[in-house]
Amino acid sequence: MNIEGNHWRTIWLDEGGKSFSVIDQNQLPHKFQTLSIKTWTEAVNAISKMTVRGAPLIGVAGAYGLMLALQEDPRDEAFQNAYQQLIATRPTAVNLKWALDRLYYKVIALPVEERVEAAKREADSIAEEDVSICESIGFHGLSLIKKIQANKSVDDSSKPLNILTHCNAGWLATVDWGTALAPIYKAHHAGLNIHVWVDETRPRNQGASLTAFELASEGVPHTVIVDNAGGYLMQKGDVDIVIVGSDRTTSRGDVCNKIGTYLKALAAHANSIPFYVALPCSSIDWEIEDGLKEIKVECRSSKEVTHIKGITTKSDSLLEMELVQLVPDGCVGFNPAFDITPAHLVSGLLTEYGIVKASKEGLKELLEIL
Amino acid sequence: MNIEGNHWRTIWLDEGGKSFSVIDQNQLPHKFQTLSIKTWTEAVNAISKMTVRGAPLIGVAGAYGLMLALQEDPRDEAFQNAYQQLIATRPTAVNLKWALDRLYYKVIALPVEERVEAAKREADSIAEEDVSICESIGFHGLSLIKKIQANKSVDDSSKPLNILTHCNAGWLATVDWGTALAPIYKAHHAGLNIHVWVDETRPRNQGASLTAFELASEGVPHTVIVDNAGGYLMQKGDVDIVIVGSDRTTSRGDVCNKIGTYLKALAAHANSIPFYVALPCSSIDWEIEDGLKEIKVECRSSKEVTHIKGITTKSDSLLEMELVQLVPDGCVGFNPAFDITPAHLVSGLLTEYGIVKASKEGLKELLEIL
Repeated sequence: MNIEGNHWRTIWLDEGGKSFSVIDQNQLPHKFQTLSIKTWTEAVNAISKMTVRGAPLIGVAGAYGLMLALQEDPRDEAFQNAYQQLIATRPTAVNLKWALDRLYYKVIALPVEERVEAAKREADSIAEEDVSICESIGFHGLSLIKKIQANKSVDDSSKPLNILTHCNAGWLATVDWGTALAPIYKAHHAGLNIHVWVDETRPRNQGASLTAFELASEGVPHTVIVDNAGGYLMQKGDVDIVIVGSDRTTSRGDVCNKIGTYLKALAAHANSIPFYVALPCSSIDWEIEDGLKEIKVECRSSKEVTHIKGITTKSDSLLEMELVQLVPDGCVGFNPAFDITPAHLVSGLLTEYGIVKASKEGLKELLEIL
Repeated sequence: MNIEGNHWRTIWLDEGGKSFSVIDQNQLPHKFQTLSIKTWTEAVNAISKMTVRGAPLIGVAGAYGLMLALQEDPRDEAFQNAYQQLIATRPTAVNLKWALDRLYYKVIALPVEERVEAAKREADSIAEEDVSICESIGFHGLSLIKKIQANKSVDDSSKPLNILTHCNAGWLATVDWGTALAPIYKAHHAGLNIHVWVDETRPRNQGASLTAFELASEGVPHTVIVDNAGGYLMQKGDVDIVIVGSDRTTSRGDVCNKIGTYLKALAAHANSIPFYVALPCSSIDWEIEDGLKEIKVECRSSKEVTHIKGITTKSDSLLEMELVQLVPDGCVGFNPAFDITPAHLVSGLLTEYGIVKASKEGLKELLEIL
């Protein structure tokens, strides 16, 4: 990722290895600020308050959190307590559990004195692998984008290829590259003429803040739209492909992703627009089939609906973050954070191993590779 | 309509008939304020800046605007100029043209000295008729709601009937009662156990501000949700019926309504949930069939997407309206205000003459009554 000409990652181990740092995503796009996390309880807070968010990134942050817990007390009871509290921060995404389990089972079998070092190695591996996985998703996605561009009619060939995305599944949701945005960066680097429609993604506005920040940083042409507008753009032929991320994908290809994804999938289907979901295989939940029945969808605070944060220019021209209330006093909101896109609305799953069908058979192929 | 125990309308002629007053909808839900409109150019501003909005209400406001123009200068040229400028304020809704045409053709044939009085009579009639039309939509909608409630399974019969609505098609969009909300008020007055899901309706948040304000004023149980959430609620079986308004309905039943309506129609269709559109017949455009091809959809300012207005509590506990920026500096938004719901997704059109099918045949029946 590129921020003002510098290469960054969203998460890294600090010198000495006694803490790790992250980009504070609650301050974006208005303020670029990093935050050093020194204890596992700070890691719990960073994940639950969404200082870090995005399924792959919270997996990595959770792993580093467990490492800090072991530095504090490497014995079983303390380790298990930290594991439990970290896993409870965000119930929907499966990567968090995947990363915590991976580190936990690697370490729990070791003698107490070897645990800290082993945890550091494992957390580092999870982070490094995330980068290569996302880059690989990017390459497979680039081929897909090239194919779709090649299929455009001659009349439309001079127009940019319009890609719609929802929420933020970019480098800010991972360690680097992103999932849904990785193909977009690869296409941009390859000189393809692309334009991205960015769903603002209420209530937390990860599109308008994070995705717009990323795309602006990388110089990718983009326009922010309200979540309501995507269907109309598809009706008018102004969307060539939709690419979104996934917080959890079931073994038959149902996709649990940010609330509102399902509505875009319905609109893409109704308008014969390819709808792809980009995901690392670590976010597949092989244990379940029916996303709607079996996934516990996190419901977040009503205040995320009734209030919104932005920046305002004060008379003294100082910029200030301000939380404003959108509704009448006393009004209550309901705030499910994810929805389920049934497999039949998904054109394909874009993974680090290539594209597979969103079906039992497609996922079985993938399982055979893993 | 009921605001803090008092009966109001959204628009009324001031004493002496030289001006008219409206509720300033840009201040809601945070401040209840009325505004007196003294010239036809003030009327143009009130419509274009959305001090008044909602297809039926802007028709009435346009008619009173024309009356003020005639008071200033009743001759043809001035009259025609005012007519042109009023009609140009909002291009999508057809009621505005309908009301302006109705008054214009009534008056233009008269001698100059009779015009002012005739215009007043006609504008008053349009306003009064709007009230009865909306109340009639309410009665037909009440029967529909009762039928849907009767069809609920015994298990669900103790739960409230969940109605989802988008944008604001309540009394604030009309003179009184509303279109989509009229059935809800009638059902509430009849003692039915109902609950309303209120789509916040980005970018201008008419749901979170105006519909929530109306329902709270009337004591109707409701919850505000982001526009993204409706599909998920439908998937989970938490929506029994969707009722929305319409800015323009074509002669084959395509419905042009606030951006995002189409996405809810797709989700209702996919989940077999009845999707009704409430409208006065004056908002039917008999001249056109294909909504997507033939309706010019208004695109509004990018700033409505990139910024949002709300209220904030200052340290001195004063409440202040604040406009906050949601996106990175320099970011551009695209802002189409309406979309088109194709007739096949509409379960029925709920008009002052009853419910008809959203089809050529259904609308032909209606035309025969008119």
